[in-house]
Amino acid sequence: MSAHGSMSADEPVSAEEPVSPRTAMGAQRRVSAREPLTGASGAVGAAAQPPSFQEMWSELRRIGRDTDSGGYRRHAWTGADADCRNWFQEQAEARGLAYETDRNGNQWAWLGHPASASASASAPASASAGGGGGGGGGTRSVPAAGDAVVTGSHLDSVPDGGAFDGPLGVVSAFAALDELRRRGAEFTRPFAIANFADEEGARFGLACVGSRLAAGQLTREQAYALRDADGVSLPEAMEAAGLDPGTIGADPERLSRVGAFVELHVEQGRALDVSGDPVGIASAIWPHGRWRFDFRGEANHAGTTRLADRRDPMPTYAETVLAARREAELAGAVATFGKVSVEPNGVNAIPSLVRGWLDSRAADQAVLDTVVSAIEQAAKDRAQRDGVDLAVVRESFTPVVEFGHALRDEIGRLLGGRVPLLGTGAGHDAGILSAAVPTAMLFVRNPTGVSHSPAEHAAEDDCVAGVLALADVLEGLACS
Amino acid sequence: MSAHGSMSADEPVSAEEPVSPRTAMGAQRRVSAREPLTGASGAVGAAAQPPSFQEMWSELRRIGRDTDSGGYRRHAWTGADADCRNWFQEQAEARGLAYETDRNGNQWAWLGHPASASASASAPASASAGGGGGGGGGTRSVPAAGDAVVTGSHLDSVPDGGAFDGPLGVVSAFAALDELRRRGAEFTRPFAIANFADEEGARFGLACVGSRLAAGQLTREQAYALRDADGVSLPEAMEAAGLDPGTIGADPERLSRVGAFVELHVEQGRALDVSGDPVGIASAIWPHGRWRFDFRGEANHAGTTRLADRRDPMPTYAETVLAARREAELAGAVATFGKVSVEPNGVNAIPSLVRGWLDSRAADQAVLDTVVSAIEQAAKDRAQRDGVDLAVVRESFTPVVEFGHALRDEIGRLLGGRVPLLGTGAGHDAGILSAAVPTAMLFVRNPTGVSHSPAEHAAEDDCVAGVLALADVLEGLACS
Repeated sequence: MSAHGSMSADEPVSAEEPVSPRTAMGAQRRVSAREPLTGASGAVGAAAQPPSFQEMWSELRRIGRDTDSGGYRRHAWTGADADCRNWFQEQAEARGLAYETDRNGNQWAWLGHPASASASASAPASASAGGGGGGGGGTRSVPAAGDAVVTGSHLDSVPDGGAFDGPLGVVSAFAALDELRRRGAEFTRPFAIANFADEEGARFGLACVGSRLAAGQLTREQAYALRDADGVSLPEAMEAAGLDPGTIGADPERLSRVGAFVELHVEQGRALDVSGDPVGIASAIWPHGRWRFDFRGEANHAGTTRLADRRDPMPTYAETVLAARREAELAGAVATFGKVSVEPNGVNAIPSLVRGWLDSRAADQAVLDTVVSAIEQAAKDRAQRDGVDLAVVRESFTPVVEFGHALRDEIGRLLGGRVPLLGTGAGHDAGILSAAVPTAMLFVRNPTGVSHSPAEHAAEDDCVAGVLALADVLEGLACS
Repeated sequence: MSAHGSMSADEPVSAEEPVSPRTAMGAQRRVSAREPLTGASGAVGAAAQPPSFQEMWSELRRIGRDTDSGGYRRHAWTGADADCRNWFQEQAEARGLAYETDRNGNQWAWLGHPASASASASAPASASAGGGGGGGGGTRSVPAAGDAVVTGSHLDSVPDGGAFDGPLGVVSAFAALDELRRRGAEFTRPFAIANFADEEGARFGLACVGSRLAAGQLTREQAYALRDADGVSLPEAMEAAGLDPGTIGADPERLSRVGAFVELHVEQGRALDVSGDPVGIASAIWPHGRWRFDFRGEANHAGTTRLADRRDPMPTYAETVLAARREAELAGAVATFGKVSVEPNGVNAIPSLVRGWLDSRAADQAVLDTVVSAIEQAAKDRAQRDGVDLAVVRESFTPVVEFGHALRDEIGRLLGGRVPLLGTGAGHDAGILSAAVPTAMLFVRNPTGVSHSPAEHAAEDDCVAGVLALADVLEGLACS
């Protein structure tokens, strides 16, 4: 893989790129036909020639891409999401892994399962033929050991999101397994690759639905109340996608099998670019929350209503937006109004309602509290001046996640101690699962820091470094 | 009609209200069975008992009202609009008027047309039975004289608009005709009541489409390019409503029949409330325009992107909103951002685009120019600081309309010289038509000034005063 190479989502999607045989991931193609590895926890079957990282990337990046924006629209339980999920199952089968969909729609591909191992060596494509294409009928028995090592991420996207957020972790997981097979590593613990459902929350407004349900942080009743912009409920959407929503809910039995979960993710800031490292280890996820600000005024004619007679909530909203930026700057936090809804939203009508959503995060809880309180106070002061009624609702909140030091330190040692630790403001399935199982994250350098955008980017060399680092970590955790 | 009476849109819509026999409009019911008036321009047929103002108001206010908001959603060429248009035709027929839909979808009810006059005295309901229910096939020959006196307004609404803006002028027109018949007034000039199509522009984003087309201020090509939020074009919408959009365009022949157009309208400010008068005469319509501000930044993750790395257009928009309020205050003008659109509009995404529409109006052109320039400059300064690209597009502009002094002064005399003159920031069909025909406006007091809102209101006594004033004006113009 050439040093100047890159895997950008905004390249034209047409012919397959040539794959350099000199690179780690290209090289994997030449050795993947080796004898399947056999681990202590069961015989391991590998396909004759599973797709390389480049091949996986080329296939996946065709799914759910909007040709106008160049961004991805892989929202949970849509057709694009189903295509991604089918792709996941195909990758599992191509490697002789035992595929299952859990009760919450999360996908798992298990290594070390006797049934799949015996079938996969000779006929990998049919190893989990009974699993269905993303449907709910594919649950098969999996290793019951509580020391499984699991890696993976998610395949869904925000509206017009980038190619890397989520998919890089899933593609890297399959590529890392291939790399370990190339190395001849022997698995001593059960191993799985996972794709968690509805991580971005783009459709139903709540992030990490699949992992929250599994970890018992979202009840079935709460999940049933979620609706998309068209009024379709989450269970209706899951049913339309071929799943049985009647079984969703906490899944302690499955999570109890997991001894360690490692999620690789593209960095969504520029810390690694500043430090000059291709790969980093997460120290913590900042506490963050979403607050809805309802500014209620009085609809009126924009041309005839004297300023003194107005109860216009738009200036109140505007003052609050500026306060959010100012307070975040003062505190070294982030605060964003990214979503707005206005009623009646007419050019010649003073709004009756401006509703703005604040997303704010900070390195610790006290700082976050200070920032949000100051924003609320500024909003209140201006609302009084504008004759506007203000209501603030905290819609969601995730406390700080400190990843366990034991696993984090072990990963640091496995990577030779050269890898920086960094905090992040983004939520992840790893953050949700950390309450239930030992969890860690690897980040891959993002030279611009841009994320949740078609311009999201990681250099090909850095993606390779990520795969190799993940392979090193998995080898150390599962093969020693 | 009792002094404490009111006709509010937010009263429950259920049983008919009792109509006081002591009031001018109630009284009309007792005398409407009189012999039809005969004017110089033709025999005038009247229905045996056309609906009173109260009855018309009660019927009309049931149409297109949203029960949640209490506001009206009578957008052009929708089902609610069709119901309003059918109601108009029924009122015309109940009074023996000759009904026609013109080439641009505007409705006319003519008095003094020989055919309708002969038919209406005995069978008013069938006088214009060939006219169709709001369809385009109802054009009948109408008086060719260039001295017709026309009154009317519009029946469509802004989203969740009030009951009075538009309908008060149409209902008052029919009631004023009934009042003149009660007085035994004899028409010496042709007379018509008009309902202009798509005045509010709520659906296609351009106000006064029916009158603009008729006056040649909007070409067929421009009208064909108009689309609603669902992508439906104006001609498609007209066709779906049973009209032939192939004929739309300038209509000088029809306008040449009109010697004077008088539009009665609820005031949309508080000038009459301040002066203590139930009725006023318009002096001018302020110049006004709509400008679209496109603030383009870069979509990015709201949790992980450092403030320094952002190109967030939301603070730029917010600063511009506050500048608009500040500059309007300084200049004694009005400036409003009532409509906003955000992309991707996600809670955890920095916007790539914030689009805000500015509506600004001032008493004269120089002041308006100053206000808008200052707002643009503030937007530019902040855009530079935020790394945001700014484009400002003037979407529409209407220069100052000075209503002709001759007609205005004659109306003042007809009303006994006791009626205040007032300017207004609202656009009206009368403003558009003033370029083609002598035009005047009467305003009815609005005690709160609230308009374009379910809370829009006029007291019943003031509505009666409006009908009587309109009758006085029409009698003076058309019956002397």
